[in-house]
Amino acid sequence: MLDLREFLTFTRSAVDEALDRILPSANLSPTKLHEAIHWSLFAGGKRIRPALVIATGRTFGAVDEKLLRTAAAIELIHTYSLVHDDLPSMDDDDLRRGRETCHKKFGEATAILAGDVMQTLAFKTIADDDSLDSDLRARLISLIADAAGTPNGMVSGQQLDLSAEGRAISIDELENIHCQKTGALIVASATSGAIIGEATDDELASVEEFARALGLLFQVTDDLLDVTQPTDALGKTAGKDRAAEKATYPSLCGIEQTKRLADELARTANYSLAGIDRDTTVLRGLVDMVATRTR
Amino acid sequence: MLDLREFLTFTRSAVDEALDRILPSANLSPTKLHEAIHWSLFAGGKRIRPALVIATGRTFGAVDEKLLRTAAAIELIHTYSLVHDDLPSMDDDDLRRGRETCHKKFGEATAILAGDVMQTLAFKTIADDDSLDSDLRARLISLIADAAGTPNGMVSGQQLDLSAEGRAISIDELENIHCQKTGALIVASATSGAIIGEATDDELASVEEFARALGLLFQVTDDLLDVTQPTDALGKTAGKDRAAEKATYPSLCGIEQTKRLADELARTANYSLAGIDRDTTVLRGLVDMVATRTR
Repeated sequence: MLDLREFLTFTRSAVDEALDRILPSANLSPTKLHEAIHWSLFAGGKRIRPALVIATGRTFGAVDEKLLRTAAAIELIHTYSLVHDDLPSMDDDDLRRGRETCHKKFGEATAILAGDVMQTLAFKTIADDDSLDSDLRARLISLIADAAGTPNGMVSGQQLDLSAEGRAISIDELENIHCQKTGALIVASATSGAIIGEATDDELASVEEFARALGLLFQVTDDLLDVTQPTDALGKTAGKDRAAEKATYPSLCGIEQTKRLADELARTANYSLAGIDRDTTVLRGLVDMVATRTR
Repeated sequence: MLDLREFLTFTRSAVDEALDRILPSANLSPTKLHEAIHWSLFAGGKRIRPALVIATGRTFGAVDEKLLRTAAAIELIHTYSLVHDDLPSMDDDDLRRGRETCHKKFGEATAILAGDVMQTLAFKTIADDDSLDSDLRARLISLIADAAGTPNGMVSGQQLDLSAEGRAISIDELENIHCQKTGALIVASATSGAIIGEATDDELASVEEFARALGLLFQVTDDLLDVTQPTDALGKTAGKDRAAEKATYPSLCGIEQTKRLADELARTANYSLAGIDRDTTVLRGLVDMVATRTR
């Protein structure tokens, strides 16, 4: 696991540097907007999605130079979605990554605009990435927009999630919500890296299968942490799923069964990697890390 | 003016058809999200920006086939901004294009998500547009993202506008807000068309100058209509600038001086077209139409 920790430390700082180059500086007018973007982006996020872009890209031989801006773009999309999801009319959360959410700190209007423009900057970042030929840029933008959009993307998942609150849903419905809301962008992270690394269609299919299992594992462990960890360990409000009457894996099938599901998803993810004739050590390490995470 | 009216009728229906092909149908899950998108987009908007893309593109010889999806994408961006601007934490408006605003009809959370995903669909539409080579697609996405984003784009303009409410600002500040909030996307509409039509750099500079004046003219006449027209004629709440203590041209320099400014901007727009050795009849017609508009 030492190598994985080094890898994650490296990707976190490399992606932060890339983000810093992409973003308007916080003291540029309108400063409130730009401060809100920096506040939301540089809040000690885990940078799982960028790590996945880079890990998958490297697996297929892509150099970091070709991966970093796509990784940063996906983190911009992820962060915009967190800022909007935390809004009072959505999940209404005051705490994120251990500190005030964007709208608590800067007000609702600025939080909406900061989210809006992080999405804009994400697509611009890929459009401007001259380390990739323009065919590839167009393909990545289309793929990431599908994952971030609707139907079967992040926004449609959030809409389904909101409309499921307070009513009974099945495990299948819950899985569908997660696959769209968080899974789609995680799959897009892995496939973006693989596409930049010029993976074959067969390899791409294995990467997709791997990332689908990893994405769901991420959500299942998130649900487990929400019921087993206190707020200060999580850096976000614990127990909020129950408070919002949100269906979760533990609420639908109990903690023990949820842990078994997590084990099964980790096995599926690793099994999918077996179809790829490359060094997948780091990708396996990521599966392990998500399976055993404590925040 | 007969030709112009025909042109606008044509572009409106052609862009609506393009949008209809781009959008997930309203009865696709999650239906509430997709209904909210259709509600907001097909509300009898004037489609000025798409008309400008097509008019400028045709001026430089581009065929409609190459212009329509970019025109639709820009309308998606414009409509997303209206949906978000109308939210309670922003301009808090109940009426838009003669009917309930998106959040009044579908709730705040859905309105935020509908806006979010219209932006996503906009960039995807250009990325997928196989009538344009991929270099051109990347250039258009970058240019439109700059116009929609920050600094000096639509979102930074909205942020400046919000922070100017209720305090005294100068004419220069007001012009800066408008140039960013509405002007930037209008300029991008015209330059997108010109770029697709392979205009020269000199022609592009003239188009930019023309569109900058036209965009400001649009805002100045908007300010005038807000104080001179009743709500039912506007299709949106009249007098709301005054109610929100928003600085406008009439509030800063009076109605008569504002009318003179409008005349001057129309002259500047037409003068900029003189540098273009093409048939600019339709573009001149658009200037006339904006200068004399009653809603």
